[in-house]
Amino acid sequence: MDRLIGLIQEKGNPTVVGLDPRPELLPPQLIDQARKETRESLTSAGFLDDTWSNDQVQAIWAHHLAQAYLKFNLAILDGVADLVPAVKPQIAMYEALGPSGIKAYTSTCKAAADRGLYVIGDVKRGDIGSTASAYAAHLSGMPLALRETEQGGETKPGYGTGTTQGLGFPWYEDAITINPYLGNDGVDPFSKAADETDGDIFVLVRTSNPSSSQIQELRVRHDRGEDRMLFEQVGDLVEEWGASLRGDHGYSRLGAVVGATHPEAGATLRKAMPHTFFLVPGYGAQGGAADDVVPMFDARGSGAIVNSSRGIIAAWKKDPSFTPAMSLPAALHLVSQAAKTAAQTMRDDLNRALKESR
Amino acid sequence: MDRLIGLIQEKGNPTVVGLDPRPELLPPQLIDQARKETRESLTSAGFLDDTWSNDQVQAIWAHHLAQAYLKFNLAILDGVADLVPAVKPQIAMYEALGPSGIKAYTSTCKAAADRGLYVIGDVKRGDIGSTASAYAAHLSGMPLALRETEQGGETKPGYGTGTTQGLGFPWYEDAITINPYLGNDGVDPFSKAADETDGDIFVLVRTSNPSSSQIQELRVRHDRGEDRMLFEQVGDLVEEWGASLRGDHGYSRLGAVVGATHPEAGATLRKAMPHTFFLVPGYGAQGGAADDVVPMFDARGSGAIVNSSRGIIAAWKKDPSFTPAMSLPAALHLVSQAAKTAAQTMRDDLNRALKESR
Repeated sequence: MDRLIGLIQEKGNPTVVGLDPRPELLPPQLIDQARKETRESLTSAGFLDDTWSNDQVQAIWAHHLAQAYLKFNLAILDGVADLVPAVKPQIAMYEALGPSGIKAYTSTCKAAADRGLYVIGDVKRGDIGSTASAYAAHLSGMPLALRETEQGGETKPGYGTGTTQGLGFPWYEDAITINPYLGNDGVDPFSKAADETDGDIFVLVRTSNPSSSQIQELRVRHDRGEDRMLFEQVGDLVEEWGASLRGDHGYSRLGAVVGATHPEAGATLRKAMPHTFFLVPGYGAQGGAADDVVPMFDARGSGAIVNSSRGIIAAWKKDPSFTPAMSLPAALHLVSQAAKTAAQTMRDDLNRALKESR
Repeated sequence: MDRLIGLIQEKGNPTVVGLDPRPELLPPQLIDQARKETRESLTSAGFLDDTWSNDQVQAIWAHHLAQAYLKFNLAILDGVADLVPAVKPQIAMYEALGPSGIKAYTSTCKAAADRGLYVIGDVKRGDIGSTASAYAAHLSGMPLALRETEQGGETKPGYGTGTTQGLGFPWYEDAITINPYLGNDGVDPFSKAADETDGDIFVLVRTSNPSSSQIQELRVRHDRGEDRMLFEQVGDLVEEWGASLRGDHGYSRLGAVVGATHPEAGATLRKAMPHTFFLVPGYGAQGGAADDVVPMFDARGSGAIVNSSRGIIAAWKKDPSFTPAMSLPAALHLVSQAAKTAAQTMRDDLNRALKESR
């Protein structure tokens, strides 16, 4: 986590911006342009719309909507890149649009990385070891198996051979989120990839959603001492799994996702997980406030980064100067400015709450 | 699950073939072709390889490797389409190759669907409700949010409007696997999408990997009666969540993933989950045998489908008639034939074990 912690200190801001585009969060000017481009694609070859199958029409619409997502993200990045240390694109929003959506996702990650931002891919992957090693491509490019296929003496660097770094499809993520339900052999391939590429992982421990208590708060027997909740047990496992991967700041490459909507859980976990950095979702739209996230930080005011998505990327909707009639460039400029102001406000709110808690 | 159960009965075979390509499972002829195509792409514009960045080279290699995966899958489908009711592509193998990999994944799903096969997308997604609704696009095309963006009176069917069916990027999956760690509000959007599209879901309950016991076997307090293991509690939740989604055969649209490596757990869960259909991974390469999976079936010999991946798709490797010198078409024909024979053997082994257990 050293790189992330360094960037947080540099910018004086423990905020990560969630790049989770949805059509209703984009200015209508962008949606209209995507619809216009779709219509043009459908007619460019001189075909009428009704010569296309519904699947083809939808794939083309998805492609142009994905392009709109990327343009929207670039406007957000213009507004916040100097203010925040990190961004967290939620891959589900892009995956819903198929291959073009995934392309927009990786282009978004690259654009953020090019601006010096730390990129957390919110992918929440998790599977058995052999499959997890394929998902680990998010961090390390092609997993090992994809680099053991050279046959004959050919050793051309690049496709098919080489070391981990930079190989395989470039995802441009510094860290990803993963799910703990399968236990450590579903986590180890990600830890290995993170260690090889100076990356990090955030394991779901206590999620921000209402029904998270259904499983995460089940009372489990502790081998020594009292019963505890499942999320506490998972927290202990994460702290343990990361023991060999600690950096200069004392935090390991294995972080934990702890929702802002559970301040008490956060306080308990902060004590139990002294070497585990927290990624804290649920701030703002989901109900978490600045005071709620203070318990997730350590005594030095480090140890956590707080995510806000809608509060920043949809800030333009609350700007009275927006009109549906304004030009696309003007609308995108407004998106940038509103995101910048919202990010400044969040930064100041968090720093104030952290200062008052000392 | 009615459509899946119908196909299992029709083919007399409770087997699903896992389409999990890896370079080392493909005939070298296919890998060599992908390398040749990559070289041609790199030189087609008259550039030398060293004018490309490593990221560009890797993306182009990933594209051609993804094409090789698709060709390999088509050969497997040629061999097994008449024998098995379903296939289960593991998206991780394709996702590792980026957007081109996702395209190969959806093309594989479509090719299987076109052959009348039931397609289980092994995606193991899981997130908070609003995000899960985006992932639900795997079943329903674009999630609702993506269809609520029409502005002005424009009502052109297709992009931006309409009902759930067939809208959005077409993934061609009949069912997907999901993770239960976030509780029901991470599951409900998938249930809703499944119900709207005559699809199904398989929730991870007891996975086949060695470390699955680490969390899934934690002893949790039962509100009434004795302690039980976490996977039993999750099993009860899945049975409960599916109560309103039962079909003609008595099984709900919410299935469960129960690993072949845990026959005792399978027997316990089969009793506790009378309306939940089981997807059983871990057969063959992971160690599960025909007798191990018998407890996952109900008294009528229904209630479960068993996955085999390497045992069928890599069967060509054990065929003495394969030679690295043979042509690509000859190698692909061998892949088809070996997969067909392996699928027949597995079908007969399963049916024998089920018959003997009566």
